[in-house]
Amino acid sequence: MRLANQGGRLVIVTGDEVVDVATASEGRFGPDPQSAYEVWEDFTAWAAQGPAPTGKLDEAAIGAISPRPRQVFAVGLNYADHAAESGHPLPEYPMIFTKFVTAIAGPYGDIVLPSANVDWEVELVAVIGRAATGVRADDAWAHVAGLAVGQDISEREVQRRGQPPQFSLAKSYPGFGPVGPYLVTLDEAGDPADLALTCTVNGEVMQDGNTSSMVFSIPELIEYLSGVCTLLPGDLIFTGTPPGVGMGRKPPRYLAVGDVLETTIQGLGTMRHRLISPA
Amino acid sequence: MRLANQGGRLVIVTGDEVVDVATASEGRFGPDPQSAYEVWEDFTAWAAQGPAPTGKLDEAAIGAISPRPRQVFAVGLNYADHAAESGHPLPEYPMIFTKFVTAIAGPYGDIVLPSANVDWEVELVAVIGRAATGVRADDAWAHVAGLAVGQDISEREVQRRGQPPQFSLAKSYPGFGPVGPYLVTLDEAGDPADLALTCTVNGEVMQDGNTSSMVFSIPELIEYLSGVCTLLPGDLIFTGTPPGVGMGRKPPRYLAVGDVLETTIQGLGTMRHRLISPA
Repeated sequence: MRLANQGGRLVIVTGDEVVDVATASEGRFGPDPQSAYEVWEDFTAWAAQGPAPTGKLDEAAIGAISPRPRQVFAVGLNYADHAAESGHPLPEYPMIFTKFVTAIAGPYGDIVLPSANVDWEVELVAVIGRAATGVRADDAWAHVAGLAVGQDISEREVQRRGQPPQFSLAKSYPGFGPVGPYLVTLDEAGDPADLALTCTVNGEVMQDGNTSSMVFSIPELIEYLSGVCTLLPGDLIFTGTPPGVGMGRKPPRYLAVGDVLETTIQGLGTMRHRLISPA
Repeated sequence: MRLANQGGRLVIVTGDEVVDVATASEGRFGPDPQSAYEVWEDFTAWAAQGPAPTGKLDEAAIGAISPRPRQVFAVGLNYADHAAESGHPLPEYPMIFTKFVTAIAGPYGDIVLPSANVDWEVELVAVIGRAATGVRADDAWAHVAGLAVGQDISEREVQRRGQPPQFSLAKSYPGFGPVGPYLVTLDEAGDPADLALTCTVNGEVMQDGNTSSMVFSIPELIEYLSGVCTLLPGDLIFTGTPPGVGMGRKPPRYLAVGDVLETTIQGLGTMRHRLISPA
């Protein structure tokens, strides 16, 4: 199943048609996507009955698949080849930061460029569908609603300010956390440990990796995070980026006004953003 | 004005009596504290009319003054004397991390001790009352609903794992972010740059500082944070801790099962917690 947030309403996407969840369920679920995450098992049982389409897919109206997560976990240096590119040793434990929630954005549209030091990072995002506390890796998938494409956009000058580096703030400008276009449930998402990820700028391939290079898998991350925090329905885990970021290039290359950034994960879809100057 | 979250309902506290905001306003405001932060100016204008008490203060029922903030900003090494104790130079920019929201807790009760490496940090907390984007320090107080006492409880072994140090995760175990007992509005809170802060364990004074040692003031922090993120009503800013943490003692001293932790800020109140073992 593919879900989207179309104009603030949860829809099931089937080709170019959608099922408006609140309409088709007569108000039992939705319209807010978060309300379905809160009762994920009931919702998926209902959705499995195959409700009939209620309208057309409207890509321009699609927003973030989890627009108001209560917690956003992000993982640094989680691809062996990206850690090498960044000049860091492989982490012994997952390196966790946050993207503050006002950075979360939809999969299409414009992103304001606050400086000349803004970089791209394609990332596989896991969306939590069942609360998790002290979950073992073997049981972790039962707590995941599905997967989505994410971008961990990063301001590198702010990130390098002081010690320790300022990952959380530097990656939290408005629009720096787009996630979508779809939430793809695990039965349709392919093997999460073998998905191609690419990021292009104006059509030029910048990142071309595979989740098989991840240091800590999604189940391992859920075990680690849920050993400290309670993960809540709708929470997002940005799982790290493969090599090819602008900071690692010689010379470094960053996003410029007018650039078009396309972010794709095999089987999950493509996000497309245009960089614009501040008003 | 002093506000509290009594059993999930916003109340105005006057001595040992309270005004239940939803009852007294006939549903115009509350009962959820967050709903008052969303319309802070309207709420304070109504509250200034002096509604009559509706019941008694029930301390045992008091929860976190902002129980579900969408963003929690925390500042490391923000007291000159604590930076020295930690062996760090003074930061050139505010050092920002988060406390994940499932760590937020009320001002009284038990906190589960997940390890033998848990430390205390009394902190002054600012609660946002009006959304802030690109706000200058001179205008920052207009975006603050009031001040509260906070504890930035910290698991030091997790914090020291890997590079960079894991501030956000290590400070986010359940109950590690108590905040309360009251939100005190600025007209009653005294001079935010000259408040005594203390933290005691079993009555023994561990921290005895003053906000006059803060490196970055609350207005400077709001200018810095709102230059990147949009601050939202109900968001919390934990503004750093003075010296005297357990990690800085020789030998280090950490919290033990049965310890009673009291956290006080002059004019704002005292929080009291007991450390217990995992179930």
